[in-house]
Amino acid sequence: MLKPIKRRSKKAGLPPGTLVHIGDKKVEQVKISVREFDNDEFHETILDSFEDCLTLRDRATVTWISIDGIHSIDTLAKLGECYGFHPLVLEDILNTDQRPKMEDYDTYIYVVLKVLSKEQSDIDDTLIEQVSMIIGSNYVISFQEKETDLFAALVDRIRSGKGRIRKMGADYLAYALLDVIVDRYFVILESLGERLEYLEEDLVTHPDAKTLQEIHRLKREMIFLRRSVWPLREVISALQRAEASLISTHTHVYLRDVYDHTIQVIETIETYRDILSGMLDIYLSSISNRLNAVMKVLTIIATIFMPLTFIAGVYGMNFKYMPELEWHYGYPAILLGMLSVALAMLVYFKRKKWM
Amino acid sequence: MLKPIKRRSKKAGLPPGTLVHIGDKKVEQVKISVREFDNDEFHETILDSFEDCLTLRDRATVTWISIDGIHSIDTLAKLGECYGFHPLVLEDILNTDQRPKMEDYDTYIYVVLKVLSKEQSDIDDTLIEQVSMIIGSNYVISFQEKETDLFAALVDRIRSGKGRIRKMGADYLAYALLDVIVDRYFVILESLGERLEYLEEDLVTHPDAKTLQEIHRLKREMIFLRRSVWPLREVISALQRAEASLISTHTHVYLRDVYDHTIQVIETIETYRDILSGMLDIYLSSISNRLNAVMKVLTIIATIFMPLTFIAGVYGMNFKYMPELEWHYGYPAILLGMLSVALAMLVYFKRKKWM
Amino acid sequence: MLKPIKRRSKKAGLPPGTLVHIGDKKVEQVKISVREFDNDEFHETILDSFEDCLTLRDRATVTWISIDGIHSIDTLAKLGECYGFHPLVLEDILNTDQRPKMEDYDTYIYVVLKVLSKEQSDIDDTLIEQVSMIIGSNYVISFQEKETDLFAALVDRIRSGKGRIRKMGADYLAYALLDVIVDRYFVILESLGERLEYLEEDLVTHPDAKTLQEIHRLKREMIFLRRSVWPLREVISALQRAEASLISTHTHVYLRDVYDHTIQVIETIETYRDILSGMLDIYLSSISNRLNAVMKVLTIIATIFMPLTFIAGVYGMNFKYMPELEWHYGYPAILLGMLSVALAMLVYFKRKKWM
Amino acid sequence: MLKPIKRRSKKAGLPPGTLVHIGDKKVEQVKISVREFDNDEFHETILDSFEDCLTLRDRATVTWISIDGIHSIDTLAKLGECYGFHPLVLEDILNTDQRPKMEDYDTYIYVVLKVLSKEQSDIDDTLIEQVSMIIGSNYVISFQEKETDLFAALVDRIRSGKGRIRKMGADYLAYALLDVIVDRYFVILESLGERLEYLEEDLVTHPDAKTLQEIHRLKREMIFLRRSVWPLREVISALQRAEASLISTHTHVYLRDVYDHTIQVIETIETYRDILSGMLDIYLSSISNRLNAVMKVLTIIATIFMPLTFIAGVYGMNFKYMPELEWHYGYPAILLGMLSVALAMLVYFKRKKWM
Amino acid sequence: MLKPIKRRSKKAGLPPGTLVHIGDKKVEQVKISVREFDNDEFHETILDSFEDCLTLRDRATVTWISIDGIHSIDTLAKLGECYGFHPLVLEDILNTDQRPKMEDYDTYIYVVLKVLSKEQSDIDDTLIEQVSMIIGSNYVISFQEKETDLFAALVDRIRSGKGRIRKMGADYLAYALLDVIVDRYFVILESLGERLEYLEEDLVTHPDAKTLQEIHRLKREMIFLRRSVWPLREVISALQRAEASLISTHTHVYLRDVYDHTIQVIETIETYRDILSGMLDIYLSSISNRLNAVMKVLTIIATIFMPLTFIAGVYGMNFKYMPELEWHYGYPAILLGMLSVALAMLVYFKRKKWM
Repeated sequence: MLKPIKRRSKKAGLPPGTLVHIGDKKVEQVKISVREFDNDEFHETILDSFEDCLTLRDRATVTWISIDGIHSIDTLAKLGECYGFHPLVLEDILNTDQRPKMEDYDTYIYVVLKVLSKEQSDIDDTLIEQVSMIIGSNYVISFQEKETDLFAALVDRIRSGKGRIRKMGADYLAYALLDVIVDRYFVILESLGERLEYLEEDLVTHPDAKTLQEIHRLKREMIFLRRSVWPLREVISALQRAEASLISTHTHVYLRDVYDHTIQVIETIETYRDILSGMLDIYLSSISNRLNAVMKVLTIIATIFMPLTFIAGVYGMNFKYMPELEWHYGYPAILLGMLSVALAMLVYFKRKKWM
Repeated sequence: MLKPIKRRSKKAGLPPGTLVHIGDKKVEQVKISVREFDNDEFHETILDSFEDCLTLRDRATVTWISIDGIHSIDTLAKLGECYGFHPLVLEDILNTDQRPKMEDYDTYIYVVLKVLSKEQSDIDDTLIEQVSMIIGSNYVISFQEKETDLFAALVDRIRSGKGRIRKMGADYLAYALLDVIVDRYFVILESLGERLEYLEEDLVTHPDAKTLQEIHRLKREMIFLRRSVWPLREVISALQRAEASLISTHTHVYLRDVYDHTIQVIETIETYRDILSGMLDIYLSSISNRLNAVMKVLTIIATIFMPLTFIAGVYGMNFKYMPELEWHYGYPAILLGMLSVALAMLVYFKRKKWM
Repeated sequence: MLKPIKRRSKKAGLPPGTLVHIGDKKVEQVKISVREFDNDEFHETILDSFEDCLTLRDRATVTWISIDGIHSIDTLAKLGECYGFHPLVLEDILNTDQRPKMEDYDTYIYVVLKVLSKEQSDIDDTLIEQVSMIIGSNYVISFQEKETDLFAALVDRIRSGKGRIRKMGADYLAYALLDVIVDRYFVILESLGERLEYLEEDLVTHPDAKTLQEIHRLKREMIFLRRSVWPLREVISALQRAEASLISTHTHVYLRDVYDHTIQVIETIETYRDILSGMLDIYLSSISNRLNAVMKVLTIIATIFMPLTFIAGVYGMNFKYMPELEWHYGYPAILLGMLSVALAMLVYFKRKKWM
Repeated sequence: MLKPIKRRSKKAGLPPGTLVHIGDKKVEQVKISVREFDNDEFHETILDSFEDCLTLRDRATVTWISIDGIHSIDTLAKLGECYGFHPLVLEDILNTDQRPKMEDYDTYIYVVLKVLSKEQSDIDDTLIEQVSMIIGSNYVISFQEKETDLFAALVDRIRSGKGRIRKMGADYLAYALLDVIVDRYFVILESLGERLEYLEEDLVTHPDAKTLQEIHRLKREMIFLRRSVWPLREVISALQRAEASLISTHTHVYLRDVYDHTIQVIETIETYRDILSGMLDIYLSSISNRLNAVMKVLTIIATIFMPLTFIAGVYGMNFKYMPELEWHYGYPAILLGMLSVALAMLVYFKRKKWM
Repeated sequence: MLKPIKRRSKKAGLPPGTLVHIGDKKVEQVKISVREFDNDEFHETILDSFEDCLTLRDRATVTWISIDGIHSIDTLAKLGECYGFHPLVLEDILNTDQRPKMEDYDTYIYVVLKVLSKEQSDIDDTLIEQVSMIIGSNYVISFQEKETDLFAALVDRIRSGKGRIRKMGADYLAYALLDVIVDRYFVILESLGERLEYLEEDLVTHPDAKTLQEIHRLKREMIFLRRSVWPLREVISALQRAEASLISTHTHVYLRDVYDHTIQVIETIETYRDILSGMLDIYLSSISNRLNAVMKVLTIIATIFMPLTFIAGVYGMNFKYMPELEWHYGYPAILLGMLSVALAMLVYFKRKKWM
């Protein structure tokens, strides 16, 4: 189940810019992958620490530093010192309880995003992971909570030199990362869409308490999904307005494309929400329809048998002088009378369309 | 039934600008119709491929290339190369899971729209088809998923030279295509309006579970309709703001007209939605009214017969000394007593307005 | 009942600017009243056609051409030719399925409005009529679907020279027409207000299915009313921003006044909507209150008589050895016992506040 | 009860600027109080008419003309002539069915406001009164529907020279009037807040139909309160933007203060509305809880006694050969059997948590 | 319980700028702590009154005057005189019924905020306290209703010289105060989040009237929380736009950080509200599910026993000639008949899925 809030309270009272890791430690060892490339070359190294960071910083090629595991305060502090990042940026990278945002620090841009993923196991739970990026003039540094295969296809593309990514700068690399993350939302939406369709079938064939529970679970996932995606819109349009020294005009058309995708994700979420509330309405009226049906059966039974039982009761009385009791055909006559009362009732119900 | 989402996941991980067809392949063979015209001339040709595209591109007349069937990646790639379209434009044309949008690429404008159509068959299902347009200074290229009669009347008008279309440029042709698409929405709205009216009659005469189902189906169609039409507003006002080299000021008054139509479609959809929620309210209160009616019948029956049955039960007891049983007129007296109890009850219910 | 949409589909496929009448033909013969006036003079003529239109056009006085009945395509075409109106304006005048709008064509302004009226007959139905206006520098041409007394008082004022209307230009005349139309909304609102008050009384004294129906009918009328009035706001503020050559600054203060009235109409509609949903809530809870009341009666009756009937049943059993049956005071004792059970129940219900 | 609309229809058809009084005539005699003051002097006179208005107009001191009773068309016409007010202003002063607004006529500002007051009597009814103000460079003219003690404290302050009011201009006087009116809203809100608290207690201890009625009455008062207060925001911010010749920059900080109060009133109204809908939800679920409780009692009683009555019925049958009837301990055995059936039922209900 | 409004009515009629304390007097003695510091020095003094205020005002160091207890009108008046604060500022400090706001008085900025705190006792009640701040070029004056440990950690940081606070100006100090207050909201949100989780468990395992009550209590707290936090957004963005003389551009990046936190608090509140309404829906449908279950039991019992009791009644009649009664196996035969009726009913209910 998606938790609404994380424990931030351990930060209360600390001076701003203090580095504290907020969130679950999802991986033991921090992994630093450095990929340097231009149109002709591609180098990939796995680092343990940022000892010789300065030589890294000043290369001419595009450098992509990908850090998996963000709980290592020491690593981050060194990186921050080397590149001259603002302490608040480092603080935010460590804090996984962020909303997606974009902050322009003139010589670099800081971007926080949320990535959603589906566990492969049976339980259909959605996981939220935070991805941070720092975009400089010739480098992108990305931070993930643990090692995932999120950017695997992208790494392959760079390695093999497919597409235009090797020919472009750091801003295009940042766009490519963004594009991968937004594409991931479509995968999540597809799986939600499938669950919606199953739910719809359930609703028609056998709506029960579980259907309701599933509706509410989907509704709730939608709340969290929406909360992750809405701010993305702002993030990307802020990138489009960013200064030309970091984001070249050539990249704008690509950002517009990823912006369109974000809008489409948002609209699909809204559509799903509308469909879900429609489903809730259908469920509730099916419930009250069934109550109606039950009540009708009860009423029909009671309305038929109460008068009959009363008649039987009358002729069960022990009065001395009850002439009907003495009649020879009294018994069959009264049975016939009862039958006609019952039939009259049934005709009445037929007319009222209760049966 | 309208599906909420299409399979985009096969694109995840591919570099942006890769040409992948997303959507159902609705036609086997791509058909390319080229229509060239000015005030004096009109030529129409059906092409198989874009081999001699360059000669086509540089004609002085207005050229309308209409492509039915968009799954042919090869055709598109050739076209894109010849006209110099951005790879993202070609990618978007192939992807039928787009929201309506307008993108200005300085020398041409790319527009995506959704066209709704009604099947002729009994089942009242609405189909959504995507139409793309590229508007250049002297050409319009339109893309449809399959061959339809959507633009048939427009083609006739060009052929016969009726109206002012032969005298105007490519921007007016683009407007004419837009106008046809928006007019189609009115046709859809009319058929929805008719279904609303039938529904209203149903609601008054015999509301049942089917009525509810129809309300929810219409509500859902409204969700999709709305999603297709809302962005149209932006698209058209973006066209109005586009640069004069592509959209002449003379065409603005026509765009304003089609913009007004769009607003009217949107308002009608909102009105329908309001009416539908009103209907849902009426249905639900008719349901609870009926529950009330059923309960009243049950209560009246029970309240009348329970005391009577009790009285009969009392005189059915086998006590040795029950003086009433010995009285000669005990039986008719008790029957009279029962009758007066029943009448008293009925008077009570009359006063409470339960009957 | 107000129809949600009109048959526009007969226009689909026709070139824009084609003159087709959409709507009901409400009058047989078109009536053209021409009124020319300035501070000193007033002439009124009834024309059959626009043969000598050009002489009319170029007079120095303010000319008000009022056309009742808009289905005559021929009349309109002549008028359009004479004054040089854009074909789209003529098309819109003929189409009664318009939303209120204002279009500025530099040398004239085209305005479409909706006028609501109450039929004098018993059935409280609201009719919507479309009024178009073309405002030129020295003329106003107004179009109505049929002859009504809407502008009768205004005509009298011009004829008699009362007020400042004879001293002012065509823009003030246009304002005066607008003012009459907006005042008409207040009349409609008053009659709706009265129906609301009756409804409120009904709701307190005897809410039934008819009350609900009336609530929904008013809600629906509110939807249409709102749809007619909301765009008026834009129309009037667009007129205020229009160029000085057509709308003099002197008229602005009057337009501001009519704008205020429009806002007030809109707010009153919103207030009515709020009151109506409050009423719906009251109705629905009165329904469920009544269900509760019915259920309580049923429960009280059942809870009292079921145990009593059971006791009577016990002593109606035919066991050979039932000592109580032999007791001399068994019968009165058991009657007393029953009475005390019944009383105990009643005390219980009193305490539970069910009675 | 607050009426949604006033009779404006008597104005329909009259030329704009015609002086017609709309609303109830709340006082017989119009009272005109003229107060002239500066830092050193203070004069107060009660006038009957505006005969020597011109001498009044041109004084150097700040002049506050307070008119109680607005139905006198004659008085108003004279005033308008003397000061040169626009006819529409006079028309609006007479019409008590206005929404709060501010109109800038260059040499003076016209402001309409709504004042709410509580009657001292038992019935908790809120009255709405309209207050108009005309703010000139050295005068303020205020119009009330009848004589009230609304501005009594302010008059005392001016008379005694307390505070800074005698040292400031007409704009500060206008602010002081505004401040009094907005403060009055807090008084109304306090009394509504108290009613809300009583209501809350009722809702917890004994919710009944009266509670519901009170909820709906408060909701309705909120609708009217909101309608009076919302436009105030615009009015005050328009005053802040007004030209320096009428509203000095020195007064801006005071207007900002009264603006803040208005925002706070609006937010409190919104909070109350939220609380009221919460209450409605609580009431409705308490109703359905009670229905549940009633149904459970019914079901328990029926489920216990129906089988017992059936058993008694079986042994009341008159078959010749019913061996149990002959047994010596048949009767106590069957009583025991019944008891165990009843106990089993009770245990079942306990487990289902119905008791 | 959070009270919706405070007694402001005692201020009605007083001139603006009159110093009146509105709110509860939460502390007997006012405590004035003065802290002066720069990079090298730190002095802390507790004052009783502002006798030698002028020497304080003109120091070169950053001065933080923290006043706990705001009911002392005398203290405030002296302070206001010494620093030259506007009377409205002093009035607002005394009035604890303020909404958060920021007012720029050129040489100083006045900020009002709401601080929420949890009582340590068992009852989970949220308290609202008002904190005012006046930010000058080299001083910050903060006002609290009583002495709390809100700023204790911050004071320690200044005292020990940790972080960058001693190196920065008064604007950074103001930011640090703001940051502490916003961090406090996260603590409140966490405790609300925990209550939400408990509630969710309750809702699944044993939803009862208390669950509903808790839902409504949380909903209500959310209303007040929202009301305190929403205006904060404006306050902080107004500080960002404030003049450079008071808020240096260097502080902007910190204000942006605290702004982001505010947005996150607001979004979390919205998420909680969404979750709470989802819970209410679940609760209500669980209630109606239970009603359904109860009704089914009743119907099953009644439908089985009513026919049986009727049959028993028939054979309890005292007709002379009832042949079945004479049959030797009549009794067992009828018992078997009853059993088969009961079984048939049970099969019917199984099929209808009522059991």
